[in-house]
Amino acid sequence: MDRRIFVKTAGAAGAAGLLGACGQGNSSAAPGEAGHYDQTFTWKMVTTWPRDFPGLGRGAARLAEMIGEMSNGRLTVKVYGGGELVPPLEVFSAVQQGTAEMGHGAAYYWRGKVKAGLLFTGIPFGLTATEIHGWLYYGGGNELYRKAYAPYGLVPFPAGNSGTQMGGWFKKKIESVADLDGLKMRIPGIGGEALQRAGGTSVNVPGGEVFTALQSGVVDAAEWVGPMNDLALGLHQAAPYYYYPGWQEPGSVLECIVNEAAWNSLPSDLKKIVEVACQAVTTDMYADFEASNGEALRTLVEDHGVELLAFPDDVLAELRGHTFDILDELAAEDAMVRETWDSFRAYMNTVRRWTDVSERYMLNHR
Amino acid sequence: MDRRIFVKTAGAAGAAGLLGACGQGNSSAAPGEAGHYDQTFTWKMVTTWPRDFPGLGRGAARLAEMIGEMSNGRLTVKVYGGGELVPPLEVFSAVQQGTAEMGHGAAYYWRGKVKAGLLFTGIPFGLTATEIHGWLYYGGGNELYRKAYAPYGLVPFPAGNSGTQMGGWFKKKIESVADLDGLKMRIPGIGGEALQRAGGTSVNVPGGEVFTALQSGVVDAAEWVGPMNDLALGLHQAAPYYYYPGWQEPGSVLECIVNEAAWNSLPSDLKKIVEVACQAVTTDMYADFEASNGEALRTLVEDHGVELLAFPDDVLAELRGHTFDILDELAAEDAMVRETWDSFRAYMNTVRRWTDVSERYMLNHR
Repeated sequence: MDRRIFVKTAGAAGAAGLLGACGQGNSSAAPGEAGHYDQTFTWKMVTTWPRDFPGLGRGAARLAEMIGEMSNGRLTVKVYGGGELVPPLEVFSAVQQGTAEMGHGAAYYWRGKVKAGLLFTGIPFGLTATEIHGWLYYGGGNELYRKAYAPYGLVPFPAGNSGTQMGGWFKKKIESVADLDGLKMRIPGIGGEALQRAGGTSVNVPGGEVFTALQSGVVDAAEWVGPMNDLALGLHQAAPYYYYPGWQEPGSVLECIVNEAAWNSLPSDLKKIVEVACQAVTTDMYADFEASNGEALRTLVEDHGVELLAFPDDVLAELRGHTFDILDELAAEDAMVRETWDSFRAYMNTVRRWTDVSERYMLNHR
Repeated sequence: MDRRIFVKTAGAAGAAGLLGACGQGNSSAAPGEAGHYDQTFTWKMVTTWPRDFPGLGRGAARLAEMIGEMSNGRLTVKVYGGGELVPPLEVFSAVQQGTAEMGHGAAYYWRGKVKAGLLFTGIPFGLTATEIHGWLYYGGGNELYRKAYAPYGLVPFPAGNSGTQMGGWFKKKIESVADLDGLKMRIPGIGGEALQRAGGTSVNVPGGEVFTALQSGVVDAAEWVGPMNDLALGLHQAAPYYYYPGWQEPGSVLECIVNEAAWNSLPSDLKKIVEVACQAVTTDMYADFEASNGEALRTLVEDHGVELLAFPDDVLAELRGHTFDILDELAAEDAMVRETWDSFRAYMNTVRRWTDVSERYMLNHR
């Protein structure tokens, strides 16, 4: 096309109304300027999930779809499942290096690089989804999240939530703290460390191998996600006891990360489209988990006769104690963890009193 | 401007990339067609809240802001507080008649027209915010919502949630069902009807008059929203006892309604922008309530010495019984209520089992 002619004409169009929301942000092409709608962007989104994986991968796909449709194709995001372009756990580096402009995963995966990352996903015995969204959007969480990722040239956004997960599948019953001794369990993250301190062994098994590891006895127990994902993997065929609650993940936040240079190249309307789509996916994915987990749990119990068991209180108390010790130790080692943990804990103490008289009391007395 | 020249040039631009996401929906101007970006829309949004009212009005303002920024001003939404353009409770009619293209309120306000409306906001002793979003987005709720509003020429979207509210402010303690007898309380909706059946009197008092009505003794008790809004009205200065839980509103959904003709006039990218902004506001408003209610409750208890009291179990049981009787009676009278209540109840029975082992158990054992 003849760019010179278009620019001139679009300038005239701008005067008639295109200038609506000019000058709201920094971008290489100011919105409403000549040529604004002529710029298109094609981005890659690498993810830590298999493509269209229930809940998580489906959420990433919905995010890309929303951005494409809202921008009328001016920002097209092509989604890659884990391993298609880069391995699942290289999403952070790939977006940092610009191999992909965008990634979808969870902050606690990058703990080797950003220790504070684990707090943005949520912690064992910590905040529920509802509570952590309050901290992120209205309690200073998102500001700390951006500060923690800035040194890596990444802009993070909360983008989805799994809700409370399940405690996992066990071959033998857990009846006291003593039963944790020597227990080999697939449980990553701080939950895994807490189990180690309680005498167990945290074994790292990728999602695709959880079923075989559990069935063959490589591990005695495994937590994966919750009823929807666990049913899909067939974990009820590998171990008989399904434990609750998912103390290790009471409301895990998923994230979208954007390469900072790519972010800065967007005009402000497309930036807003990305930001709002991430916030919408938080509602959407959580709703998906909620409805689908309800159905899947019914299937597991009614059709497959799965036995649901609660962890004994002393087991939870033991794991809770180790969890908060680990967090205090991490905070002592790392300034960003300390700042984030201080904010998270102060918010948690305030919001818990509210939850106790609202949602918690309601759930116990309806 | 010279439209003819612009159209011709934009056609050329389209070939270079503007056609990205064409043809995804029905609209009067197909996206990517010549002139697409030349069309601008200026809409009015009437609301049932005072402008910038904490939580609710603030959410409506954020919704308008998101739409304006994402569309680069192609769809500008001007927000009117309740009473500025039309009275708060005429929002439904005003949008139906096209006085405004868009409205923000709550479905249970329109029960006189759409009886099923109350189910889309949520019911006493019903679903929490988290649960009802599962029903709306992934359990068939939104389809019923659209079906219920279609005869009125309105397109509805969930757009915000207050979370669990509080039970209200009381001048005397409620120690048994007998204390409901003769109690005059500001409590609208099904909650008010349940109170009537338990021997009390539901008094209709607009928000702006709640404080005076309670202080002067026109009512013996009043429920408004929750700590953030109640503190703003100063209700702690009008009655000493603050009761929980807000059995009458366990997780109220706010709504955005759009005039159907106005909706159909939008190209599909702007439709998607409205839809996604509503879903994002659901996360945003709920997070605002969560964080702000936590802070406000702390202020009420620590700075104002407010006494928090739980309703006795037999009081809750009495009100619960009446609530479900009322719903069954409404369902017997109205086919749309029946269809919606059947769907709501079936989902509720399934999701509750999931909540019991996930969020509820977690909240009780963390």
